[in-house]
Amino acid sequence: MKDKRLFTPGPTEVPKEVLKAISGKVMHHRKKEFSGIFENVIKNSASVFRSQGEIFLFSSSGTGAMEASVVNLTSPGDKALVIIAGKFGQRWAQLCSAFDVETEIIDCPWGEAVDPQKIKDSLQANPDIKAVFTTLLETSTAVVHPIKEIAEAVRGTNALLAVDAVSGLSCEELETDQWGVDVVVAASHKALMNPPGLGLLCVSDKAKRAYENNARKSYYWDLKKASASLKNLQTPYTPAVNMVYGLDKAIEMILAEGVENVWQRHRDLAGVAREALQDMGLELFSTSPSNGLTAVKVPEGKDCKKILTNLEENARMVFAGGQSHLKGKIIRIAHMGWCAEKDLRRALDALKKELEKQ
Amino acid sequence: MKDKRLFTPGPTEVPKEVLKAISGKVMHHRKKEFSGIFENVIKNSASVFRSQGEIFLFSSSGTGAMEASVVNLTSPGDKALVIIAGKFGQRWAQLCSAFDVETEIIDCPWGEAVDPQKIKDSLQANPDIKAVFTTLLETSTAVVHPIKEIAEAVRGTNALLAVDAVSGLSCEELETDQWGVDVVVAASHKALMNPPGLGLLCVSDKAKRAYENNARKSYYWDLKKASASLKNLQTPYTPAVNMVYGLDKAIEMILAEGVENVWQRHRDLAGVAREALQDMGLELFSTSPSNGLTAVKVPEGKDCKKILTNLEENARMVFAGGQSHLKGKIIRIAHMGWCAEKDLRRALDALKKELEKQ
Repeated sequence: MKDKRLFTPGPTEVPKEVLKAISGKVMHHRKKEFSGIFENVIKNSASVFRSQGEIFLFSSSGTGAMEASVVNLTSPGDKALVIIAGKFGQRWAQLCSAFDVETEIIDCPWGEAVDPQKIKDSLQANPDIKAVFTTLLETSTAVVHPIKEIAEAVRGTNALLAVDAVSGLSCEELETDQWGVDVVVAASHKALMNPPGLGLLCVSDKAKRAYENNARKSYYWDLKKASASLKNLQTPYTPAVNMVYGLDKAIEMILAEGVENVWQRHRDLAGVAREALQDMGLELFSTSPSNGLTAVKVPEGKDCKKILTNLEENARMVFAGGQSHLKGKIIRIAHMGWCAEKDLRRALDALKKELEKQ
Repeated sequence: MKDKRLFTPGPTEVPKEVLKAISGKVMHHRKKEFSGIFENVIKNSASVFRSQGEIFLFSSSGTGAMEASVVNLTSPGDKALVIIAGKFGQRWAQLCSAFDVETEIIDCPWGEAVDPQKIKDSLQANPDIKAVFTTLLETSTAVVHPIKEIAEAVRGTNALLAVDAVSGLSCEELETDQWGVDVVVAASHKALMNPPGLGLLCVSDKAKRAYENNARKSYYWDLKKASASLKNLQTPYTPAVNMVYGLDKAIEMILAEGVENVWQRHRDLAGVAREALQDMGLELFSTSPSNGLTAVKVPEGKDCKKILTNLEENARMVFAGGQSHLKGKIIRIAHMGWCAEKDLRRALDALKKELEKQ
């Protein structure tokens, strides 16, 4: 498996420099040398989040950081609006249900983006909605949602806007502060080019007021405690020190390339993927295709599982199939994070050959 | 900092082989090759936990795994017995409070172990206690609690026994199944010789029945979901893949040495530490000293902070001071995990020289 190139939407391929960084000697997390690295990560992450808000690191997966959003922004009995257009929209709804948050749901067909007008209407009809939970890049469908327009729909209401950008951050344009997004959830192992193990949260002043005044108690995810530690460049509990080394390196690489250049690279990669796949006669699954990930429908009569297995075993490349009811129906090719055009073209060529063989 | 040898009770020193393992290429967590490694970790961990119970891995710190215990074993309004003899006993109580668990508290002076008779008495007086939360090695005081006798006190009651063995597992004797411990909490970055980033839980059949029938809902920590994934050698959410590589390597090293030999090495190291420290005229802080960590009182007139800073800056060794009200009053020297007698003797010599200089 260690010779297989990942074209999966997380974990993704990790640069050698980052893998080298995470193998560094462990430092004590309460010492100034580690705080220096931590400070660098927080400061540089702000440029990736495009935000002056607080940035929190959790030793967790992206789902952990989603849970942190729900438990810190809502109290039991609160109402939230959840946009479901795939598996990760569903995850927001499941989290709300687990933590006794009443939900208004906007259900979109999988493969489509949400219409921001529906959000506006729902917020008007339900002025008691405390938070809107949505997704930047819905990994299960390769759809990008119009966060800028969603933020406009939420603006002027009391609701907070929380965006799952776990697989979207750094591959899709996201102007957190300028657009008015209150909470951005991210994770180390997607376009941020790290192994899994760190969840990130970027939190606006409006969201900070909400968690400071929140009635719900929490512990591991408690942002009040995390915020107090952040002032000392620490975390309340022992952080995944070596993963922080990796994130530090990866974010430095992103800043060296330039955040807007990274967005442009992903736009270009997505263009290459869409053109090549359509040239193969394949149909895009998403009507709002993302820049980090492209999904195509499996042609009638072709065996999705066999295609993916052959690509993995022979071409040594790991692609993703569909999830839930899309299993066997779509193929997803991630070009997020550590991906150059030649890597992607190699993947597309391999897929083409495999399709021709079948 | 990267040239400083850690004698801190977590993070601890990590063998080069483990650091090399965690820098391996990232595998996809839903593929059979990763499941093979995961299976190996789970199977081999059972030998370290000395248990046939379920073993769960969380991408989290040890505190995350403690939270998982509380939310899965208790429902709001339940009563628990908490043994507080230091900062990590307090953490159990804080977690219970955060999750609306009523607590009976046995408060022990810091530096002493709990008297199991008090637990027996409390359980007799409070037959509605659902769980007993205690600590194997109380890191803040270097005390080891008599878990075997505590388990005897709990046996025959309906209560579950959950033990925080975050810094104790593999350096203190612990016969999970034989003694009748229901939940053991551990973490990667103490005597398990890994960097921080993984929390572990070992769960008995009795505790499994409790979490299966628990009324409280949870999400990231949900053991019902984790148990279903475990059957497929997976985790519900993306695990910290590279940290799992490291844990796999470290646990193989522990098994190669032999679990009982590792316990004996820690007994021997503790003997060396206690003798040398007392020979320096220092007084042990704990009346029930642990094998993984030794604490001594700072002699009257000596400046604890200066001692620790000089050791760090000049001898390039990181020791720990006291926490909470013990700040400035004790010095803690960890000899847990990746520690040989020569490493420890080097540390003790450095401390001796530093004390003579002052």
